[in-house]
Amino acid sequence: MDKKIDHIGIAVRNLDASINFYINVLGGELLERYKSEDKGVESEIAVIEINEDRIELLSPTNNVTSPIARFIQQKGKGVHHIAYRVDNLEIALEELNKKGIRTLEGTLRINKHGRRLIYLNPADTEGTIIEYCDYPNKS
Amino acid sequence: MDKKIDHIGIAVRNLDASINFYINVLGGELLERYKSEDKGVESEIAVIEINEDRIELLSPTNNVTSPIARFIQQKGKGVHHIAYRVDNLEIALEELNKKGIRTLEGTLRINKHGRRLIYLNPADTEGTIIEYCDYPNKS
Repeated sequence: MDKKIDHIGIAVRNLDASINFYINVLGGELLERYKSEDKGVESEIAVIEINEDRIELLSPTNNVTSPIARFIQQKGKGVHHIAYRVDNLEIALEELNKKGIRTLEGTLRINKHGRRLIYLNPADTEGTIIEYCDYPNKS
Repeated sequence: MDKKIDHIGIAVRNLDASINFYINVLGGELLERYKSEDKGVESEIAVIEINEDRIELLSPTNNVTSPIARFIQQKGKGVHHIAYRVDNLEIALEELNKKGIRTLEGTLRINKHGRRLIYLNPADTEGTIIEYCDYPNKS
């Protein structure tokens, strides 16, 4: 199944400064900014488009329970995940299962834009957090 | 100046396992594999192409002096940098300078494929290591 990078997720503390950097230095455009208090997110999110590439900036809204806060505490600010878009997430998950690649429990969700996503277990990817996503309502 | 993601650099320990993951799970193709003992690299590198996206896997060849080894010691395995291709690196560096964005001293180099590159100072990017690169001998 074809895979293409959908976006790169970046863990930041200062969302305003980060947005400013990606717009004023890299020439990006702010597509949207919103808060998600969904379990496993708990972040303020800004989506930036730089030509055809998309960056998702994530800034934790809760310093104890947000996984982005924990990521920054453990690893520091920086790239949090690479998201690959697949044609069909269910079929992609069957393929992963056949290949012995696990997903991270509790990470399957649909975000407010209809993006359905799950994280692969970094123990099976040599450490990188990889998201698989699809857009089930878009053809 | 237009910017486009050239590749994503990922710090790994087990290069064979990583190559295997990106080929067998993500459907990528191994474009090349080589060692670079250049100062500031000191890594074995595998370049993987997944459709139009490129991943650069970096595995340290020296556990003390390689910056990739230090990165893994401090932050763990995972995404090391995002590389943006610019039309002309000199002009891009002038723009950065005007905007008060510093580069990381000693990181400017040309790799064996004619890619000219430099890292931005993560203190000025909200933590992410960003590479700027161009290909001065390609039109």
